[in-house]
Amino acid sequence: MRMVDIITKKRDGYALSPEEIRFFIEGYVSGSIPDYQASALAMAIYFKDMTDVEIAELTRAMIDSGETVDLSAITGVKVDKHSTGGVGDTTTLVLAPLVASVGVPVAKMSGRGLGFTGGTIDKLESIAGFSVEMTSDHFVQLVNRDQIAVIGQTGDLVPADKKLYALRDVSGSVESIPLIASSIMSKKIAAGADAIVLEVTCGSGAFMKKEEDAIRLAETMVQIGTHVGRKTAAVITDMSQPLGFAIGNALEVKEAIDTLQGHGPNDLEELVFALGSRMVLLAGKAENLEDARGQLEQALAQGKAFAKFKQFIENQGGDPAIADHPEQLPRAKYQIDLLAKESGVVAELRADQIGLAAMLLGAGRATKEDSINHAAGIVLCKKVGDRVAKGEPLLTIHSDSKDVSRIEETLYHHIKIAQHADRPQLIHRIIS
Amino acid sequence: MRMVDIITKKRDGYALSPEEIRFFIEGYVSGSIPDYQASALAMAIYFKDMTDVEIAELTRAMIDSGETVDLSAITGVKVDKHSTGGVGDTTTLVLAPLVASVGVPVAKMSGRGLGFTGGTIDKLESIAGFSVEMTSDHFVQLVNRDQIAVIGQTGDLVPADKKLYALRDVSGSVESIPLIASSIMSKKIAAGADAIVLEVTCGSGAFMKKEEDAIRLAETMVQIGTHVGRKTAAVITDMSQPLGFAIGNALEVKEAIDTLQGHGPNDLEELVFALGSRMVLLAGKAENLEDARGQLEQALAQGKAFAKFKQFIENQGGDPAIADHPEQLPRAKYQIDLLAKESGVVAELRADQIGLAAMLLGAGRATKEDSINHAAGIVLCKKVGDRVAKGEPLLTIHSDSKDVSRIEETLYHHIKIAQHADRPQLIHRIIS
Repeated sequence: MRMVDIITKKRDGYALSPEEIRFFIEGYVSGSIPDYQASALAMAIYFKDMTDVEIAELTRAMIDSGETVDLSAITGVKVDKHSTGGVGDTTTLVLAPLVASVGVPVAKMSGRGLGFTGGTIDKLESIAGFSVEMTSDHFVQLVNRDQIAVIGQTGDLVPADKKLYALRDVSGSVESIPLIASSIMSKKIAAGADAIVLEVTCGSGAFMKKEEDAIRLAETMVQIGTHVGRKTAAVITDMSQPLGFAIGNALEVKEAIDTLQGHGPNDLEELVFALGSRMVLLAGKAENLEDARGQLEQALAQGKAFAKFKQFIENQGGDPAIADHPEQLPRAKYQIDLLAKESGVVAELRADQIGLAAMLLGAGRATKEDSINHAAGIVLCKKVGDRVAKGEPLLTIHSDSKDVSRIEETLYHHIKIAQHADRPQLIHRIIS
Repeated sequence: MRMVDIITKKRDGYALSPEEIRFFIEGYVSGSIPDYQASALAMAIYFKDMTDVEIAELTRAMIDSGETVDLSAITGVKVDKHSTGGVGDTTTLVLAPLVASVGVPVAKMSGRGLGFTGGTIDKLESIAGFSVEMTSDHFVQLVNRDQIAVIGQTGDLVPADKKLYALRDVSGSVESIPLIASSIMSKKIAAGADAIVLEVTCGSGAFMKKEEDAIRLAETMVQIGTHVGRKTAAVITDMSQPLGFAIGNALEVKEAIDTLQGHGPNDLEELVFALGSRMVLLAGKAENLEDARGQLEQALAQGKAFAKFKQFIENQGGDPAIADHPEQLPRAKYQIDLLAKESGVVAELRADQIGLAAMLLGAGRATKEDSINHAAGIVLCKKVGDRVAKGEPLLTIHSDSKDVSRIEETLYHHIKIAQHADRPQLIHRIIS
C-alpha cells in the first residue's frame, strides 16, 4: 500500500477502505508517513468529504492510536457531554451537578484549552483550593459514591488527533466536517464515554458560523456514534450572542451558582434542561424525555442540584461555602458599565467580538503559555430583543486595569440597537 | 504574510496576489515554508485552479528561484521546442537539423529523463563518440557557426520546480494543469528560449489522456508565453498509438535518418513539418506558414537537412558516416516478429502498453539508476487503419534476450484487429 495512491484515490472522489484509513493513521502516528502526505490527504478530504463508514473507521483508527480510559469500574451508563464551544459557556458547571443529582454518573475528564475564556477546569479553579489532581482510583471512588468528579487529562489519548489537528491548523484544513467530527468523537470515546450528548453551536461566536454546517457536523457525529456503538444525541444551539449573561471564569462560576439556585438566565437554564434531559434518558434513568426533564426540574427546585454542586466542590478541595457566598470569588478591581448611546431594542451582540473583548481583559488564553485572570470578564445587562434606554448599562466590564477605552470602542462597534429585533431561538434543532 | 492564510485563500477559491505567489516560491526554496504547507497548497490548486495572471506569476517566480541561461551571444531568435512526451518520440532528432538547415538557431539543452525510452541525449548516444559535454562558449560558437548544438543540463535552473515536482509526485498533485504548465514553461524560459513551440500529446501514451485536458494545458502554456513575453504556439497531437514505427534509442536514430533522407513514416514527417514551420515562423525566417513549410520541404528534398544532421553529429564527436550506414548502429541480438493471429484491420495499438514493453526490453529507465540498452526496442510494421493478414508481422521485437514470451503476450493483449478502423487524425488542433 502506498500513501500517494491513497491521496490520489481520495482526491478523485473515491471512498477509502478501512485498511487504507488504518494504514494512514498508523503510519502517520509512527512517523513512516510524513506530514506532507498527511496534509495533502487532509486537503483532499476537505474537498471530497468522506462517507459515514469512512468517518467511523477514521474515528476507530484514531482511538486505537493511543491509550483509552477504562471507566468500567464506575456503575451505570457513563454519559459525556461535549460542546463545540462558544461565549459564556457556563453549561457544564450547571449541567454536571444537576444530572449527577438525579443519579447519572458524571466522570468528567477536562482540559484547559485556548479561547475566549478558560476551559471548565480554569473556571472551577476560580474557587480557592479546587483541584483536578487525583488518582484514577480516587476519581472512580468519588463518582461511584457521589456521581460526580472532574479529573485533568491523563494518559496519551488519541495521539493521532493531536498530531493531525496541529498539522491541519497550519495547512488550511481545519474546517473539514469529517475531520472535525472524528476528532471530537475519538476523544470522547477514548475518554470512556458510553453515550454522548453534543451541543453543536452555530453563529458568530461558534466554530460553525452557518446553521447548515452545524447540522451537518451534528449529523456526522451522531452517525459516528451509531457506527461505533455509542448512543449519541446532538442539540444545535444559537451562539450569535453569548449564552447567559456572564463571560469570564469566576463570573461564570457565580452565574452557575445562581442558576443552580433557580435564578439563572433563562437561556442557560433552557439549554441545561435540553441537554440534561437527554443525558438522563441515555443513562437509562428515565422512561422518556418528559420524565427526564421532570426529574431535573424537581432536583433544581428542591435544591438537590445545588447541594450536589457543594458536595462536588468539597470533594475536590474547595470550600463549599463559596456557593452561599459567591461574593468571595475573585473580583476584578474595576467594574465599568458600558452605557447605551441611544434608546431602542438590542438587535445584535456579536458573540465572537464580545468573547474577544473578554479574552483581551485576561479571561482567556491566546497561546498555551498565557495565564488566566479568573476575575476578568464581561457581564451582559441586556440580551438581543431587550429594550434599552439611552444611558442605561448594556453590560459591565470587569477589569484589573482602569483604562478600557479601546475595549469599549470595540464593544460599541459590535452591539447594535434598532427599533425592533426578535429574540433569537436558542435551540435550533435536535438530532438523534 | 502567513503561508496558512495563502493556503486557505486558494482553498476558498480566491486568486493569489503576485506577492503571495512569490512569498510561497521563495519561502519554499529557502526552506522557511515546509513541505506540508507546500503539498497542501498544491492540492488546493489542484481543486481550485489558478487564473492566467496567477500562473504567469508562478512561472516568473519559479524562473527567478534559480539561474537562467543567457543565449544572447547567439545571433537570431532562439526558438525551443518541447513535447509533453509520448512513445516513439523521434521528433527532435529530425526537427533540430531540419530547422537548423534553413537558418533557425537550435541551441538545445537536453536531459535524460525517465520513461518508455531515453531522452534525446540517450538516443543520440546510440552513435559511438557522440557527446553533449562541452563548454558554454563552445556551445555558443557551434550554434553561431552551424545553427545547431545540444548540450547537457547545466547550472541550477528552476530549483523551485525540482523541489515542487518531487513533492507533488509523492503527494498526489501531479495532474494539475496550472502546476504542469508553469513547470514546463519555467524550464524552457530559464533555458534561454525567446520563443517556444509546444507539442502537447494526448491519448493512451501521453500524460494527458483526454483531448480536452491537452487543449487546456496547451492554452495555459500559450497564455503564460503571452504574459511573460515569449511567443508560444502549441500543436495538439494524437498519442493513442506510437508516433512513427520505431520505439527505442538506436531504432529511433535510424528512423530519424530515414526521415531526413525523405523516406520516413508519414505521421512523423507530417508532425515535423507542422512543428518546424511554426518554429521557422517564430524565428522570423519566413513570411507566413506556407513559406516556412515550403523552405522545410525544399531543405529536406535537397538533402540540406540530412547534411546538417551529419555536420551536427561530427561537431559533437560522432562519426557522420553512421548516417549513410545506419546498419552500424547498435543492434539487438534477436529480432522477433510478432505475427497477426487473424486477418483484418489494425484497430488499436495501445501506445502506453507498447511503450512499457519497450521499456521492459531495456529501452527506457524506470528509475534514475537504471542503465539503457541502446539497441533494444520495438519496430511497428503496421499502424492503426492498416490491413493485416493472418501470419503477417505486426511488429518486430528487438531484444538481447531470446525469451520474450511475456512481452509478446502483453503486446497481443493491447493490439486489436477488427473488421474496420479509421486512421486516427495526427494533428488535432493548433493553439497560438
